[in-house]
Amino acid sequence: MKNRSFMYQAWLGDIENKTQTFKVVGDSTADFAMEECKHGLGNLATDNGNVTVNLATAENLPAEGFSIVGKPDDITITGGDKIGLLYGVYKFLALLRQNIDTTNISLNDKPTVDKRILNHWDNIDGSIERGYAGNSLFFRNDQLHFDADRLRDYARLLASVGINQICLNNVNVYLESAKLITEEKLPDLAKVADIFRPFGIRLIIAVHFESPVLLGGIKTADPLDEKVAEWWQNATKTVYKYIPDLVGFLMKADSEFRSGPASMGRTQAEGARPIAKALKPFGGVIYWRCFIYNCMQDWRDTETDRPKAAYDYFYPLDGKFEDNVILQVKHGPSDFQVREPNSPLLGAMQHTPQNMELQITQEYTGQQKDLYALAVQWDEVLEHPITETQTTRDIIGTDNKIIALSAVANVGDDENWTGHLLAQANLYAFARLAWNPKQTPKQLTQEWIACTFGNNLKLLEPLTEMILQSRAVYEKYNAPLGIGWMVNIHHHYGPSVDGYEYMKWGTYHRADTKEIGVDRTAAGTGYTTQYQPYVRDMYENLTTCPQDMLLYFHRLPYDYKLKEGKTLIQHIYDTHFEGVEGVEEFIKTWDSLKDFMPQVAHESVKERFVMQLENAKEWRDVVNSYFFRKTGIADEKGRKFYL
Amino acid sequence: MKNRSFMYQAWLGDIENKTQTFKVVGDSTADFAMEECKHGLGNLATDNGNVTVNLATAENLPAEGFSIVGKPDDITITGGDKIGLLYGVYKFLALLRQNIDTTNISLNDKPTVDKRILNHWDNIDGSIERGYAGNSLFFRNDQLHFDADRLRDYARLLASVGINQICLNNVNVYLESAKLITEEKLPDLAKVADIFRPFGIRLIIAVHFESPVLLGGIKTADPLDEKVAEWWQNATKTVYKYIPDLVGFLMKADSEFRSGPASMGRTQAEGARPIAKALKPFGGVIYWRCFIYNCMQDWRDTETDRPKAAYDYFYPLDGKFEDNVILQVKHGPSDFQVREPNSPLLGAMQHTPQNMELQITQEYTGQQKDLYALAVQWDEVLEHPITETQTTRDIIGTDNKIIALSAVANVGDDENWTGHLLAQANLYAFARLAWNPKQTPKQLTQEWIACTFGNNLKLLEPLTEMILQSRAVYEKYNAPLGIGWMVNIHHHYGPSVDGYEYMKWGTYHRADTKEIGVDRTAAGTGYTTQYQPYVRDMYENLTTCPQDMLLYFHRLPYDYKLKEGKTLIQHIYDTHFEGVEGVEEFIKTWDSLKDFMPQVAHESVKERFVMQLENAKEWRDVVNSYFFRKTGIADEKGRKFYL
Repeated sequence: MKNRSFMYQAWLGDIENKTQTFKVVGDSTADFAMEECKHGLGNLATDNGNVTVNLATAENLPAEGFSIVGKPDDITITGGDKIGLLYGVYKFLALLRQNIDTTNISLNDKPTVDKRILNHWDNIDGSIERGYAGNSLFFRNDQLHFDADRLRDYARLLASVGINQICLNNVNVYLESAKLITEEKLPDLAKVADIFRPFGIRLIIAVHFESPVLLGGIKTADPLDEKVAEWWQNATKTVYKYIPDLVGFLMKADSEFRSGPASMGRTQAEGARPIAKALKPFGGVIYWRCFIYNCMQDWRDTETDRPKAAYDYFYPLDGKFEDNVILQVKHGPSDFQVREPNSPLLGAMQHTPQNMELQITQEYTGQQKDLYALAVQWDEVLEHPITETQTTRDIIGTDNKIIALSAVANVGDDENWTGHLLAQANLYAFARLAWNPKQTPKQLTQEWIACTFGNNLKLLEPLTEMILQSRAVYEKYNAPLGIGWMVNIHHHYGPSVDGYEYMKWGTYHRADTKEIGVDRTAAGTGYTTQYQPYVRDMYENLTTCPQDMLLYFHRLPYDYKLKEGKTLIQHIYDTHFEGVEGVEEFIKTWDSLKDFMPQVAHESVKERFVMQLENAKEWRDVVNSYFFRKTGIADEKGRKFYL
Repeated sequence: MKNRSFMYQAWLGDIENKTQTFKVVGDSTADFAMEECKHGLGNLATDNGNVTVNLATAENLPAEGFSIVGKPDDITITGGDKIGLLYGVYKFLALLRQNIDTTNISLNDKPTVDKRILNHWDNIDGSIERGYAGNSLFFRNDQLHFDADRLRDYARLLASVGINQICLNNVNVYLESAKLITEEKLPDLAKVADIFRPFGIRLIIAVHFESPVLLGGIKTADPLDEKVAEWWQNATKTVYKYIPDLVGFLMKADSEFRSGPASMGRTQAEGARPIAKALKPFGGVIYWRCFIYNCMQDWRDTETDRPKAAYDYFYPLDGKFEDNVILQVKHGPSDFQVREPNSPLLGAMQHTPQNMELQITQEYTGQQKDLYALAVQWDEVLEHPITETQTTRDIIGTDNKIIALSAVANVGDDENWTGHLLAQANLYAFARLAWNPKQTPKQLTQEWIACTFGNNLKLLEPLTEMILQSRAVYEKYNAPLGIGWMVNIHHHYGPSVDGYEYMKWGTYHRADTKEIGVDRTAAGTGYTTQYQPYVRDMYENLTTCPQDMLLYFHRLPYDYKLKEGKTLIQHIYDTHFEGVEGVEEFIKTWDSLKDFMPQVAHESVKERFVMQLENAKEWRDVVNSYFFRKTGIADEKGRKFYL
């Protein structure tokens, strides 16, 4: 291999085993799985191995599912199909990496949803929108451009945790990336598909709504125009000629200056129709993003309320979409903030399948400079109620409402894939949650640590604890009580309390000298009424609204008493000091873990912590000084603010 | 000519004259002046002209000076040299354009300073830093790239108002533009010099302090290193081989991430020395910019005060510079804000000549979307006292302290040169002020209008009035009372009250719920003490500090009573409403002037006014809402604020 460094291998590092060697055998369906098994075992795989590993497929197991039966002298791994077998192999290797005894084991597993997706926001020039780990693995200078060995390593990394669909190109499609569905670029794209195919990973292509105009020279992209429908049919035929197992297309329409059906007086359902119909003969689907809002709002307009937008657009269209249209809904109604409620669209649609979109790349959550355990946040997203008796977790499944889980990738061509070594845990956690949303953040984190660093409890326990706390620590020094958006504009790193306050993006806290927040109750903008009654009432009511979501839903005076007895303003002050202290604790913990990993890995994370500490202090001082300057209310503990 | 449109011709439009035609004759020194005279007269120049125009030079007149003696049948224009003669010709043509009778006239004129300079901030890729009128006239794709005809028209435009030195390239020099002093680019640059030379305009080149490293492969740019001195000597020799009349170099060192002597532990005087010495044999000078400050200031640091920086750096070095180093000092200590005091450096240096730098391009003053009469502001700059009996105007002159006047150009390849047609007035005014700083804004504005639009009083009077008011109107809706900087970061258009507040750029208003401003008196940061006693006392004292500069020097409560009897906060509210009303008045005035100019010219300015009105409203509402939210103090007149 070109690169077998500790950080590059991620959770697929070398397996150490003092007692066992393995002889890998398999039936005719097991060719690639055998290769991968031997690759993972490294030197432990030998024709004279003292344990036989039998690989096979069996029709009685579900697609992508597998079973592992381990005895002292042999292990049998059976897949429901070739890919299920492969997943079984990766699971077996992961058990070995974690030093879990396989000599007396029997397990069955299968994925909860059959669409487990990464969206890369890679631009065809090689840059990555919201990328914090180098440049694109796929593109350079308006062309497909890749290192095939590295892509294979990447495919293995993703397949080992169950990802089975990826979109390479940014949902913001421009002219050159629009050409990915043309003969100009398809031959190269097909080569990438060839690399990912044996790993059970199929491609999605993000397409431009105006493709018929940009690429076909047709005068309109109006979805009701017959020429447009015909153009999509022909274009799709060409695409499938090169990539017969393509999943389908991904579309960002009518969003943030993207063209779409609304600009032509058509509904989103009408907009999706000709493309969905073109995909149908090939078994293809279209993922249609619901991230639509007025991004040219006049900040003086207090009627418009951005979180309401997606529901207003899409709910009335339930049942009107072609059956191969899957609505891709961001988990929250805002935009991947540290804290927001779930989108009311999730679970509301009765006749339209949904794909819940998460974000692994840390756009608002520290940009892979700050440590941030997304698994913790996602667990809350999954726990978010739909009704009194049903959570979001309960409506996920291939035959349920949320039939797909996708996330924006956090990888690039940095040696360790994710910039921050510990941000690998977020990629790992998303993939494993997509496989099985019932896993807890603690399970996921421990598993990742054990696969990556080994299962020495002296490392495992403090590191798990640190990672699990990292979301809470970040939130403490960030925007308070769910209000979000207090970030520097455009690049979104670091604090700017009024940064988006007088802008067109629909994100306002409207803090004055007495109060802060937007009333989103029925008496306010009415956003709460988009939820089903149980959730509506929970947010509507000050006593049942979760405290960390208080300012998302309510406008409150600074002297409002929180349950803990503190005033709102003192809570802001206190949490911002605590956040910095939390980072200081992280650094102490990290320093204590020096001996459990290669020096280069330890140092690279330490460098990130130094940046994080500075960022946390900046947040603390800017936010606290802002509110002190605005309210004139002194800190009860007399700590330092800046004038 | 390629383009003789009204807007392209600017103040050099066609001359209409019903009674006179002209026969242009001249002695052997008058060849180019005759060409230019005939060019300007157009169809009115003929061999049978009824008025003879005699062109000659005479040694008894000063260099660049001229006399015009007009009689009914002949006009005699005499120059102190060829360029003085050319200036006389342009003056004569300007008189005709303004319909001023030349049949009985006798005038003498000469420039106050012999260095009248434009600095272009053109990047070698073709973009312009702080450019609002298209792309560069000189560069494209890392090369000199120009339309020779257009450059000749530009040279004429500048020469007609007396500009005699120009720097083409941005003071922020990067690798490619650093190469302008190498054999790679000098042949092309020499062609530009050839175009400008007959018009009396000589080139300056902005150079990179690290040139010996970047271009010479030397390991250091340390000015005390002999190899560095030698490198500059050789480089300069090469430059003068191609452009023997080059004025010299322009340097931005140790400023905003530019390298410089300070980073090597050397003074600015030491830094300039080897370059100055290299230039001396060729009669060259180096303009050394004094715009040095800590642009990585921690906003929490209240000791550092950016306006103090230039004086602190340079005043102790008075007399230590080579005699061909000219310090280029921005007129104010901040950075071309709408309102700031003059730099205390101006006039303080006793043994070091200075070049006062103004900015024509409207970086902070409306970006050629908003109308802004810089002549009005510059008049205040010139009136700014040095001592009780001396103003800045008094120390300008070839043999005085300020021996040069320079300004950042506002031109690009837009058809009308300046984006906003009326912004041509600013280019005109700077050049004429550099020639003679005693002219009033009203004179300059009227002259420009009469040359451009004709002297119909129905246009001349209201348009003069409008332009002269435009600075006050803009200031009303901008940052209040001289505090500056409340702009959107980086691009500097539109309001962001806290935009720079928590940043590293050293520009803070530190507004809290009770007070605003930084105390820059002796009791505060001590900035006032950099001035001579009269000026120091004026700013130090609340009763003598000019009201429009109040928040530049003092921290005051919002209920501070201004002289007019209003509170400070009510003044903020009122002026911001008045500013918008002012723009509405402009639009009415402009609409009434429709019949006095070509439709295309009228419409192009009207479009700008529509943008300006929106900008003014945005400023009004953001600034007023910001202060209302921060103070809770209602408007006495009950007008609308936004929460």
